[in-house]
Amino acid sequence: MAKNLTQKIISNHLVEGEMIPGQEIAIRIDQTLTQDATGTMAYLQFEALNISRVQTELSVSYVDHNTLQNGFENADDHRFLQTIAAKHGIYFSRPGNGICHQVHVERFAKPGKTLLGSDSHTPMSGGMGCLAIGAGGLDVAVAMAGGPYYLKMPKVLGIHLTGKLQPWVAPKDVILEVLRNLTVKGGVGKVIEYYGEGVASLSLTDRATITNMGAELGATTSIFPSDEMTKQYLKAQGREGDWTPLGADEGCEYDEHLSIDLSELEPLVARPHSPDNVVKVHEAGPIPVSQVAVGSCTNSSFSDLMTVATLLKGKTVHPNVSLSISPGSKQVFTMIAQNGALADLIAAGGRILESACGPCIGMGMSPSSGSNSVRSFNRNFEGRSGTKDANVYLVSPETAAATALTGKLTDPRDLGLTYEKVSLPEQFTLDDNMVIEPAKNPEEVEIVRGPNIKPLPINTKLADVVNANVLLKVGDNITTDHIMPAGAKVLPLRSNIPAISEYVYAVIDQEFPKRCKEAGKGFIVGGANYGQGSSREHAALAPMYLGIKAVIVKSFARIHRQNLINVGILPLVFRDESVYEQIAQGDELLIENTVNQLAGDEIIVRNVTKDTVFTTVHDLSDRQKEIIKAGGLLNFTKMNSGVTI
Amino acid sequence: MAKNLTQKIISNHLVEGEMIPGQEIAIRIDQTLTQDATGTMAYLQFEALNISRVQTELSVSYVDHNTLQNGFENADDHRFLQTIAAKHGIYFSRPGNGICHQVHVERFAKPGKTLLGSDSHTPMSGGMGCLAIGAGGLDVAVAMAGGPYYLKMPKVLGIHLTGKLQPWVAPKDVILEVLRNLTVKGGVGKVIEYYGEGVASLSLTDRATITNMGAELGATTSIFPSDEMTKQYLKAQGREGDWTPLGADEGCEYDEHLSIDLSELEPLVARPHSPDNVVKVHEAGPIPVSQVAVGSCTNSSFSDLMTVATLLKGKTVHPNVSLSISPGSKQVFTMIAQNGALADLIAAGGRILESACGPCIGMGMSPSSGSNSVRSFNRNFEGRSGTKDANVYLVSPETAAATALTGKLTDPRDLGLTYEKVSLPEQFTLDDNMVIEPAKNPEEVEIVRGPNIKPLPINTKLADVVNANVLLKVGDNITTDHIMPAGAKVLPLRSNIPAISEYVYAVIDQEFPKRCKEAGKGFIVGGANYGQGSSREHAALAPMYLGIKAVIVKSFARIHRQNLINVGILPLVFRDESVYEQIAQGDELLIENTVNQLAGDEIIVRNVTKDTVFTTVHDLSDRQKEIIKAGGLLNFTKMNSGVTI
Repeated sequence: MAKNLTQKIISNHLVEGEMIPGQEIAIRIDQTLTQDATGTMAYLQFEALNISRVQTELSVSYVDHNTLQNGFENADDHRFLQTIAAKHGIYFSRPGNGICHQVHVERFAKPGKTLLGSDSHTPMSGGMGCLAIGAGGLDVAVAMAGGPYYLKMPKVLGIHLTGKLQPWVAPKDVILEVLRNLTVKGGVGKVIEYYGEGVASLSLTDRATITNMGAELGATTSIFPSDEMTKQYLKAQGREGDWTPLGADEGCEYDEHLSIDLSELEPLVARPHSPDNVVKVHEAGPIPVSQVAVGSCTNSSFSDLMTVATLLKGKTVHPNVSLSISPGSKQVFTMIAQNGALADLIAAGGRILESACGPCIGMGMSPSSGSNSVRSFNRNFEGRSGTKDANVYLVSPETAAATALTGKLTDPRDLGLTYEKVSLPEQFTLDDNMVIEPAKNPEEVEIVRGPNIKPLPINTKLADVVNANVLLKVGDNITTDHIMPAGAKVLPLRSNIPAISEYVYAVIDQEFPKRCKEAGKGFIVGGANYGQGSSREHAALAPMYLGIKAVIVKSFARIHRQNLINVGILPLVFRDESVYEQIAQGDELLIENTVNQLAGDEIIVRNVTKDTVFTTVHDLSDRQKEIIKAGGLLNFTKMNSGVTI
Repeated sequence: MAKNLTQKIISNHLVEGEMIPGQEIAIRIDQTLTQDATGTMAYLQFEALNISRVQTELSVSYVDHNTLQNGFENADDHRFLQTIAAKHGIYFSRPGNGICHQVHVERFAKPGKTLLGSDSHTPMSGGMGCLAIGAGGLDVAVAMAGGPYYLKMPKVLGIHLTGKLQPWVAPKDVILEVLRNLTVKGGVGKVIEYYGEGVASLSLTDRATITNMGAELGATTSIFPSDEMTKQYLKAQGREGDWTPLGADEGCEYDEHLSIDLSELEPLVARPHSPDNVVKVHEAGPIPVSQVAVGSCTNSSFSDLMTVATLLKGKTVHPNVSLSISPGSKQVFTMIAQNGALADLIAAGGRILESACGPCIGMGMSPSSGSNSVRSFNRNFEGRSGTKDANVYLVSPETAAATALTGKLTDPRDLGLTYEKVSLPEQFTLDDNMVIEPAKNPEEVEIVRGPNIKPLPINTKLADVVNANVLLKVGDNITTDHIMPAGAKVLPLRSNIPAISEYVYAVIDQEFPKRCKEAGKGFIVGGANYGQGSSREHAALAPMYLGIKAVIVKSFARIHRQNLINVGILPLVFRDESVYEQIAQGDELLIENTVNQLAGDEIIVRNVTKDTVFTTVHDLSDRQKEIIKAGGLLNFTKMNSGVTI
């Protein structure tokens, strides 16, 4: 039977289950990646599995999040990551080498492979025809230990691309258009697969921008075929041998459909505070801007920065605007330094930041109070910039550069300049000197742990009676930035669950951790798309540490739901959404016969305070039920050694 | 009578007093500079003086300290500084334009002028034959308002330079040698004036490195003559017209003497935790190093970074070392980007940080726990790096680069390379597009104040009976980093005295602010060289806000003593140092008839707890006595409008 590209790669890696959308399957993982903010925990979990050497074809540990180093914690984490990588057969990308996804596309991703990464933007490598999925650190740890990755067989949403982008319209505008169509919930349970004659006009890094920000759809991943453009890019990276042609079979089917005529797109912008709040730049109007930020994994490639440099050359950033530029990788940084573009960016007044995630995860460059910041990034959640009342707008590098020059949100077509499309170089500057190979003699490597690296907290088995109060009730579209904030204050504590748990829900309710500690146990009640955003398992680990037993919502985002399961928190969904309205914060809830109830499809919850009863569903696979009963994946894996891994 | 260079410039600017060492004089100030961490307060003080336009020849407001922007505070401060500069006739150097001292030397400093700056490294412009003095923000505010600057006529310590630096020996080694000779107290009450045939071999930026770090001697300032080298530099900066030849008169005298034969110097290092803890690099030995940091106002010039780039070209930073590079100015950054050196630095694995003070003031790059960090900076006080138990070593850029390559403290001569002296370019790249001129229509400028910018706290008049407890007793060489820490957590609060006062003495005693608030008033007792380090008046303002009435010590550092006077805190010195041992923290002290006693030279203090009496001296001028009585310089200036300013 004719398969689409997603089905082909899954089929090639299928270990368990049937490829029927919604059913649980397990796939073999070829490559893994971690970044430092999720990685310290992932490697502590890997250690707990007692495997001396990673079992994947390739595992890379990147440092790109905690690079500001305000205090000993970050540098200690880097040292821990470097030594544990050397010991267990993992490649280590040193601080300064760039953003994990950009570097992975450049140097490691291969068409047809599976990649599991402890970062939600892992799908960026989907631009190369790789099935690249973001997951919690524990899932990545299990994959490094040789275990398969369990997921529900996704639906495949085919996006048929026709036409060709007009001058000044960018790949970023393509994904903004998809977000406008599908919303941040539109990708849940789906892989977004691009095909059609429009694909050939998009360069590899164009495609990577599109699959990267597919994360904002809530999709399992996004993917492009591997074609001549892919070959050309790999050749320019000195990796022609990694190329294989790969695409959907003729006559294959998609579970869902969308068509986009690239020729008809205009510059778009995602307005505050959601990446799907998309309108035309013209429609958003010339709002005054205090800051423009170029970079992040979505838009920090060679062509992105060359585009910005070309626009800024010989000009000066508007006096009211602070422009930051964070190159995506050492390769990009070196090349724009070699060809003079970096000199143009500096001369124009750009503030050059280290090659890292930087402002995109709230590491610096917080805007001034109440002002508008225009960014080439992928997320504009409230408060993520580090300034609570700032308004963040997401745009293409072209629109960002135009805005930096005028001081107001500007459609780049309105500058009246001649468009010069930046093409990818025939040969990238190649030097992997900032990637350290695993140790030849791992037994000689001593893992260095600083005082910030605390032991993993482990959950206990599922209790048969869960009786606790609703310690927090929140609305729709709660992000992992709400649950477990990032930013320069909190991110350094990622290796220290007791310390970081003090910041759970700090954006919404600073008293929440205290309430949890006083109660000892509790429930969270939420709305639709609960847990969207990043893959950070700390958004599950820290609530577990605080005693949260179940989260009851209208619907979950995929990775966060899996993270809750992995730490042994019940992820329950209202059978009848209207019940949400009938529960108040503080209500006492009771679940009896939990273990028996879990065997079925429903769990009955009594609202003791309101003296009512309501039904929740969980849609857990048999394996997931066992994980929950064991008190999380780590307990489960240890109990079943030899079975799961 | 033949004058030395210092006496000549002072004489040309003398407004009041006699040029007898130790006697109070007042001099006219031609130029001022501020940076953002001290500047917000200085401009609030300037506003309080009700002068619409600065009265100096040139005043520049720089942004170089608070550039990380973790939270709204920094960007709000920048916006405040930009708007208040436009309104009051001040040039504004935008964030990204570089470190105040480096930019000031490049673009503004002139031989023979006086410069007052609210940063302790203001003497850097002394490399150009400018009398450049660091002071508290309020002194700078008064100077901007047209008032003279009051100081004790300094002694002039002549340093006679002979010979020529050997290959791999750097200007930094000259100032380290001076520190080894004179110690951090050796410059108090003195100007350090360099002369002799060795001077001609030092380029202008070489000289600026030496005068910059003269701040660590506690000196009033340091100065070099203006000669052909100065002319050549100014010409290369397109400012030949700013040149005047200037030097000491033949046959002039110096109050004190030191001779240094440049030919005999070797690479030196200041070991933890003091800049005068200087030994030869060979003597310190090959200690393992986790981090190397190049930059700071002392060593971030074009020739410094070219030296490092030349050493690193084609090589890779040692795997155990994280190397950061912070260019000193946009001019330097642009030029090394244009000539390929920056590409070499990036390719070698350098982590390129924004052009700003950065790690030198604890803004990022904190080393890992307990590790050794080798830095081209000027201060290595305990904890200043942001990592409490890290050891910071101060070296030349040459030694820093050699160390980055080997992973251990390394004398660059031991690399066995051929030495290539970097010469200054005949023409610097000139573009002042990141300096904003004052508004043409200042009445139209609205000053934007964010929520972090709090009103100035003002002291009350001196009480006639001061009865309070010793709330803290500390030892010798207390720095302003002890009293009022910098770093990424605290620096953003520089516009907010109530908030920042919570961190006073946080490094030594976290309970101190609480104790002050409970007591409502108090004394601090300290040892020798109290208040060395930076010019931050927050180290006086915040204790004043906490109720500190007098600080009693063995001796004071100059700028801090003046800052105490400026906020109305009594700066008292034990007549008999042995009394220090007889006072315990918690003792109740009593000063009676304060105002009358102040009229004389001594103040008698009763230790009520120990039932003893001891004598303190204050060495205050009549004017300073009036300032203390008024409760600080701002009150005094307002009371005497038309007299002082």
